Amino acid sequence: MIDRLHAALSLNPRQTTIVTVDMHRGHLDPSVATMATDPHDARRVIAAARELLDFARGASIPVIHVKLVYRRIPGLGSEGMTQPFWRAMHELAESDRLTPGRPSTVDEHNIVGSPGTEIIPELYAQGDFVIDNKKRLDCFFGTDLDQLLRALGATTVCLMGINTNTCVLNTAFTAFNLDFRVVVLADCVASMYGEDLHVLGLQNVARCLGWVLSNAEFRGKIARRAAREP
Amino acid sequence: MIDRLHAALSLNPRQTTIVTVDMHRGHLDPSVATMATDPHDARRVIAAARELLDFARGASIPVIHVKLVYRRIPGLGSEGMTQPFWRAMHELAESDRLTPGRPSTVDEHNIVGSPGTEIIPELYAQGDFVIDNKKRLDCFFGTDLDQLLRALGATTVCLMGINTNTCVLNTAFTAFNLDFRVVVLADCVASMYGEDLHVLGLQNVARCLGWVLSNAEFRGKIARRAAREP
Amino acid sequence: MIDRLHAALSLNPRQTTIVTVDMHRGHLDPSVATMATDPHDARRVIAAARELLDFARGASIPVIHVKLVYRRIPGLGSEGMTQPFWRAMHELAESDRLTPGRPSTVDEHNIVGSPGTEIIPELYAQGDFVIDNKKRLDCFFGTDLDQLLRALGATTVCLMGINTNTCVLNTAFTAFNLDFRVVVLADCVASMYGEDLHVLGLQNVARCLGWVLSNAEFRGKIARRAAREP
Amino acid sequence: MIDRLHAALSLNPRQTTIVTVDMHRGHLDPSVATMATDPHDARRVIAAARELLDFARGASIPVIHVKLVYRRIPGLGSEGMTQPFWRAMHELAESDRLTPGRPSTVDEHNIVGSPGTEIIPELYAQGDFVIDNKKRLDCFFGTDLDQLLRALGATTVCLMGINTNTCVLNTAFTAFNLDFRVVVLADCVASMYGEDLHVLGLQNVARCLGWVLSNAEFRGKIARRAAREP
Repeated sequence: MIDRLHAALSLNPRQTTIVTVDMHRGHLDPSVATMATDPHDARRVIAAARELLDFARGASIPVIHVKLVYRRIPGLGSEGMTQPFWRAMHELAESDRLTPGRPSTVDEHNIVGSPGTEIIPELYAQGDFVIDNKKRLDCFFGTDLDQLLRALGATTVCLMGINTNTCVLNTAFTAFNLDFRVVVLADCVASMYGEDLHVLGLQNVARCLGWVLSNAEFRGKIARRAAREP
Repeated sequence: MIDRLHAALSLNPRQTTIVTVDMHRGHLDPSVATMATDPHDARRVIAAARELLDFARGASIPVIHVKLVYRRIPGLGSEGMTQPFWRAMHELAESDRLTPGRPSTVDEHNIVGSPGTEIIPELYAQGDFVIDNKKRLDCFFGTDLDQLLRALGATTVCLMGINTNTCVLNTAFTAFNLDFRVVVLADCVASMYGEDLHVLGLQNVARCLGWVLSNAEFRGKIARRAAREP
Repeated sequence: MIDRLHAALSLNPRQTTIVTVDMHRGHLDPSVATMATDPHDARRVIAAARELLDFARGASIPVIHVKLVYRRIPGLGSEGMTQPFWRAMHELAESDRLTPGRPSTVDEHNIVGSPGTEIIPELYAQGDFVIDNKKRLDCFFGTDLDQLLRALGATTVCLMGINTNTCVLNTAFTAFNLDFRVVVLADCVASMYGEDLHVLGLQNVARCLGWVLSNAEFRGKIARRAAREP
Repeated sequence: MIDRLHAALSLNPRQTTIVTVDMHRGHLDPSVATMATDPHDARRVIAAARELLDFARGASIPVIHVKLVYRRIPGLGSEGMTQPFWRAMHELAESDRLTPGRPSTVDEHNIVGSPGTEIIPELYAQGDFVIDNKKRLDCFFGTDLDQLLRALGATTVCLMGINTNTCVLNTAFTAFNLDFRVVVLADCVASMYGEDLHVLGLQNVARCLGWVLSNAEFRGKIARRAAREP
């Protein structure tokens, strides 16, 4: 059962890397967000992420921030517009289709240079790594994330960020396929698509792909490992 | 809303391809299955898939069957054993961990030459294409699926098979990232992981990635297009 | 023969994109270069590239500059150091192994923030695109080059830059595999590895992969096409 | 210099894998070849490969044969026909364009089921691995070669086969980019494109990418390592 798998998990800080998924103002800062997470979730996620990242850096665990940033292409608009589902959403002018109850825009989301592309300031620290050319849902797709993880000696990837059931889940799938151990940090993820899909995203990882940990569980496992191998 | 997106979908048979995901005996034939779908789901899926595939071939829509087949590696076992989550499952001898209520095996699943690697006979027809080197959850990962879809001129990929929330969903994510339009055929998918993850897998596609169609809806859209462009 | 293939080539400016390969100061500016091209070649290439790029922009042909930029990884050094051949070169302290007659460094090449990572100023213009996370020899490897080319509607990729027989040739191979038409702009490429490998790099493209054009031939083909389709 | 790099190379048989590139009858058996190597080169390569592979298997070094095999696509022909350079060759009916002095065919090359797709019988042994869905020049492109190499624990990839300056060189580039150590077995490669491009291919690897070894040098290095670590 999940409990036995969970208990058996040992996290070696020297082979673990945190990947933050789309934790930038375009999702998490209501003052500029183009695809806004529910503000309550945003506050929860930012607070939990800040606590987890501060702890991780103290254990010398590397942090990679992955950001989705779009160029404008003459005649096309945002680079996101070649995706047929997103284009269909845009053309139907469904302003709250992806974010029930809150306006959002597909075509103006995360355009290079916009304030939405800034990482949430309290989550970034000097020494963190940044990958800023994510173009779709998967943090590995079209980026050097795999190469950077291997350069860092990572065998376990711990994911936090937005959205539990799309970008986080897709990145979890690809990390799984690449034979990484996959951890999702449950306190530090949320979904703008709705609470049910947030819960699915976590269940899908816990029952099929990897390990879902709270901040307390993550800290506990790192501390137990450090006690064995100072 | 989903309804408007759904109504606006037009399917051109000349640019549509069906991809069957892991529809082989290792999942769907209880007499040999190493990771068995619930038998009731298996019967439903096979019947619906057979009906849909017969219709699709009549409309000259290509069919690609993707199979997961593992070599044995001396000293390692199945090629699946380098995946840490699967190895952990294997080592905990959790024989029903992935398939609640039914025994399953990770290390003996779909070994090359085993009867489980045969496509369900009633779903295969001469002229269908086969990709038989899938090794993980994503049908595109390590295969020539992308190249074959482009050779077939596909812009829309219609997925059926096993499992709704892992291989089908992962393949849907990658097709999305590659800018295909994504359709999941709801009558023709199931999940051995549980009914809740099956339902949520479909919701994830319908609300975030693409279009979920019943067999009747698929046939209707193809017929309407054919009426316009004989 | 090459002549017939060559004569039959038609270049549609609306489906053609220029990709500049590693045309930054780390290769081409002797005052800061960490892997210097022969200064005579550098002058030739910069002059020819400037002329070709000015012409291309006048025909509304997009330009993508791809740069190799390395992070420093604590405990490892440059991200390039996980490549065993480069590491072996570094450890043997072969300061002119890759660049006969001129000192070079593997471990200090193109570190993020260094002047070597600047695109040669006269080759850049506002409106050009930049990909700055190339980590190995192939411009497509770990970058979004493929997605950007498709967003631009490119079916023909025209390569210029450094080095004819490694980064340019590797990128030509991958463009070929992805079913792009491949053009190498002979006046605008050079190799720091030696003149023989430069010549043979061009022969390899012309006889096996695509088309090798001088600046004059490129301009001629674009002009002929424009005359037919204003 | 090459000599120092060469002397410093140590080959651990437990982390070394041989990859044979397109060593099937379509290239190497004049009685059925659709893109024939020069017969003298074919005899040389087959004899040297047989000797090297027998030695390698005796040292428990895994062997992976990679074959290029094309499906026929209705309306298109061979899957190779979406490559614009190959299509242009085919349309110009340049029957000896790629293979000076010998007739060849692009559209009928290595069609699934044809005798040309058989591995040269004396090079295959029970226990060898086979990858049979190569579609372009790079053995990694669209195949599970990377996953299989990692499952085998390989850190060094030794290439033999056809053609030195295209498929072997392209595969060498990708192996390099993936941070494998790259060895090309000079006695066991040849190029149908011409002797000068064969020489280039070897020079390009030796001076820029990896190590070029004769059969004797390969045997010597494996034997020396075995003497140190029985």
